[in-house]
Amino acid sequence: MQKTIATAARTAMKRCDLLAGLSEEPDYITRRFATPPMHEVHEVISSWLRNIGMTVQIDAIGNLIGRYDYRSANGDKPHSHDHRNADGDKPRPYDYRRHTLLLGSHLDTVRNAGKYDGVLGIMIALACLERLYERGERLPFSIELIGFADEEGSRYQSVYIGSKAITGTFDPHDLNLLDENCISLAEAVSLFGGNPDPQVLRTPRWSHSELLGYCEVHIEQGPVLEAHNLPLAVVSSIVGQQRVILQLTGEPGHAGTLPMEMRRDALCAAAELTLAVETLGQSIPGLVATVGQLHVQSAACNVVPGQVQLSLDIRHEDDRQREQCTSQLYERAQRICIERNIGLKWEIIQNSPTVTCSPTLVQRWQQALSEEGYSAFTLASGAGHDGVTMSTLTDIAMLFVRCRGGISHHPAESVLEEDVAAAIAVLERFLLLTAKGVLDECV
Amino acid sequence: MQKTIATAARTAMKRCDLLAGLSEEPDYITRRFATPPMHEVHEVISSWLRNIGMTVQIDAIGNLIGRYDYRSANGDKPHSHDHRNADGDKPRPYDYRRHTLLLGSHLDTVRNAGKYDGVLGIMIALACLERLYERGERLPFSIELIGFADEEGSRYQSVYIGSKAITGTFDPHDLNLLDENCISLAEAVSLFGGNPDPQVLRTPRWSHSELLGYCEVHIEQGPVLEAHNLPLAVVSSIVGQQRVILQLTGEPGHAGTLPMEMRRDALCAAAELTLAVETLGQSIPGLVATVGQLHVQSAACNVVPGQVQLSLDIRHEDDRQREQCTSQLYERAQRICIERNIGLKWEIIQNSPTVTCSPTLVQRWQQALSEEGYSAFTLASGAGHDGVTMSTLTDIAMLFVRCRGGISHHPAESVLEEDVAAAIAVLERFLLLTAKGVLDECV
Repeated sequence: MQKTIATAARTAMKRCDLLAGLSEEPDYITRRFATPPMHEVHEVISSWLRNIGMTVQIDAIGNLIGRYDYRSANGDKPHSHDHRNADGDKPRPYDYRRHTLLLGSHLDTVRNAGKYDGVLGIMIALACLERLYERGERLPFSIELIGFADEEGSRYQSVYIGSKAITGTFDPHDLNLLDENCISLAEAVSLFGGNPDPQVLRTPRWSHSELLGYCEVHIEQGPVLEAHNLPLAVVSSIVGQQRVILQLTGEPGHAGTLPMEMRRDALCAAAELTLAVETLGQSIPGLVATVGQLHVQSAACNVVPGQVQLSLDIRHEDDRQREQCTSQLYERAQRICIERNIGLKWEIIQNSPTVTCSPTLVQRWQQALSEEGYSAFTLASGAGHDGVTMSTLTDIAMLFVRCRGGISHHPAESVLEEDVAAAIAVLERFLLLTAKGVLDECV
Repeated sequence: MQKTIATAARTAMKRCDLLAGLSEEPDYITRRFATPPMHEVHEVISSWLRNIGMTVQIDAIGNLIGRYDYRSANGDKPHSHDHRNADGDKPRPYDYRRHTLLLGSHLDTVRNAGKYDGVLGIMIALACLERLYERGERLPFSIELIGFADEEGSRYQSVYIGSKAITGTFDPHDLNLLDENCISLAEAVSLFGGNPDPQVLRTPRWSHSELLGYCEVHIEQGPVLEAHNLPLAVVSSIVGQQRVILQLTGEPGHAGTLPMEMRRDALCAAAELTLAVETLGQSIPGLVATVGQLHVQSAACNVVPGQVQLSLDIRHEDDRQREQCTSQLYERAQRICIERNIGLKWEIIQNSPTVTCSPTLVQRWQQALSEEGYSAFTLASGAGHDGVTMSTLTDIAMLFVRCRGGISHHPAESVLEEDVAAAIAVLERFLLLTAKGVLDECV
């Protein structure tokens, strides 16, 4: 018998609680790339997937992939549960009915994380698949549900390792990255039971033509849905971002003996720039601009700061607008530093363009929301997601679930069970609309 | 034969080089309170003092005290080299000729210090005494040259321990302070060979009536003399200061998902206040106001700062003006925090009034400068000195020596030999003027 959506949502919530206990640390949730609790999570989720007839695989980098096979329009079952041949590398040719829709999110967490960031999206997708299975329903395409190995990058400070390996965009240099215990990424992959062969990690799992797209359900990690009193939003894009590290060099001095007019105070320059960043952020709709780190070198109560390092994070959906803002802030930083006789080092350490979600998929999500009685609210994602990497191979889209106070990366992360139920209903509707779309196209 | 002043200055410089080698660390100068190199410094300096007939004593806390005895106007020598009686506690009654002038500075250093902060003042006084001795000259008062045990407070974060013990203002609670190796101050004093008996440390070495004052020669630690192209300055006062620790509490958030208008960014509030501090400092003549420390809690490039701690250091010669400025900044901080919905904790951790140098002594220093052909330039000391404590017992005054770039507390500390020569000449003139003053008074 098919579970009600309410029951499915309760189960998803309980599963998030359960998985939260699989952690590197006894008192809080930390589950980083290729650590022992990731094995435990794989085993637990694999058993849930196998219960509904899915095949399960852990790939070379440590992504969990469960496959829910298609049934063709005329009721044929597939010949094989795995779409790969014996040597495991080259996909076979597919006809239209063998197209695959990818669902997923990540299974790793930051240190001292909440219960929902990543895991919730997989549990919601699983709930939908369980309901399909309970109804004996298969779709005219296969679904692969992916639990990505590393989205947070909290072990190797390198994000999207999982989705990079599965899309063939993995950078082999990253194999040499070291964690805090000087274990290389290659070593960690081997110890986990994976295969750190660069050739394998550079081979995409699918070709573009066999994919229907990648969809991820994720908590919003922001306060906008809550402010609008809405449970769900379709994501329009994953906004581009730039990260800059600035070094301001003035001259240290004695706080009691160096007259104000002779100072070259690096902290005052940093303060001026920090306010300029805030003012610009407030003046351009959709822009977020943040000084998150600020470190005073050799700081003391009675020393005029001689050197300050700060970080700048700038995000906007429109890449040109964002780059203009960054240039504007660079010019402003230069002017501040010239006026104050302060040295400026400006180092751009990240520059990721905006990834736009597929208009077709976005429209289908909006339709699913409307048909389920929800507002088709659309929102840009200020945070990065595996979709950024997946977009190199296929169309992407995302559904956001409201979270309390916009809090994430914190034990206080919280979602409403009724919002999870809404997400299950809307994802199910989305899958049925996709099935209809595929059939309509192939008639 | 009497050395020339130029030779005396060269000797003083060489002695600073030599003493710099007596350090806790092989590669840089660190000589904190009651550490082994302080013993070595005491031995070396004691031998120089004894060479010119001075008696030397290390007191209960670890101050080095050398005594250069008076000769009365009619040529009588004193009966005893020590002005204390056998049980060492009560000074004998003195007639006017037995008055004592105190000279001194400190022998301890900060970590990774320069060669001159503290030590130079003692070497300059020693040079003068050597010249007196070489001429067979004694003054109608005794001189006690003090090498204070702890002015920087770099071992116990409690300044003026040496001068507090010698003036009887030592706080017995400080005996329980712990250094970084958990050695208590009492233990350190015992290990050094001193006597951590609170009774002893609370007994002043002199009574007010027997002292002619305390004078210290010290590097300026600021850039004002250099800017005025002058070697020396008389100090008008040691300016009062307040230190405040501020805690600003906003709310952390994701730098990509938290819209600008919903932020409670503690760093932006801190930046606004930092600029307000600078602006106020620039607008009030003689005020120095500094944010020296600024720490962002759980800082990350992609996190809106939720909590920031910063320090505020405010100094002005006029106590009322300074307190008004502090109030003004407090009000400003409150306004900033109310506007930004940020919590404010404002904790005053230090509030020291200005210590004014004795007008009589200042005038005598000015006369000495003029008579030696130097400008009688007068300057407030923005830095604290043992004179603050000595002022509880006697009149104080100071002479500043130019240092390169105003740099102190750093290996790059540097003074010109010719400025040291000037200081020796001026101190010698000051001593002779003092002698004349004493004799004139007693005729």
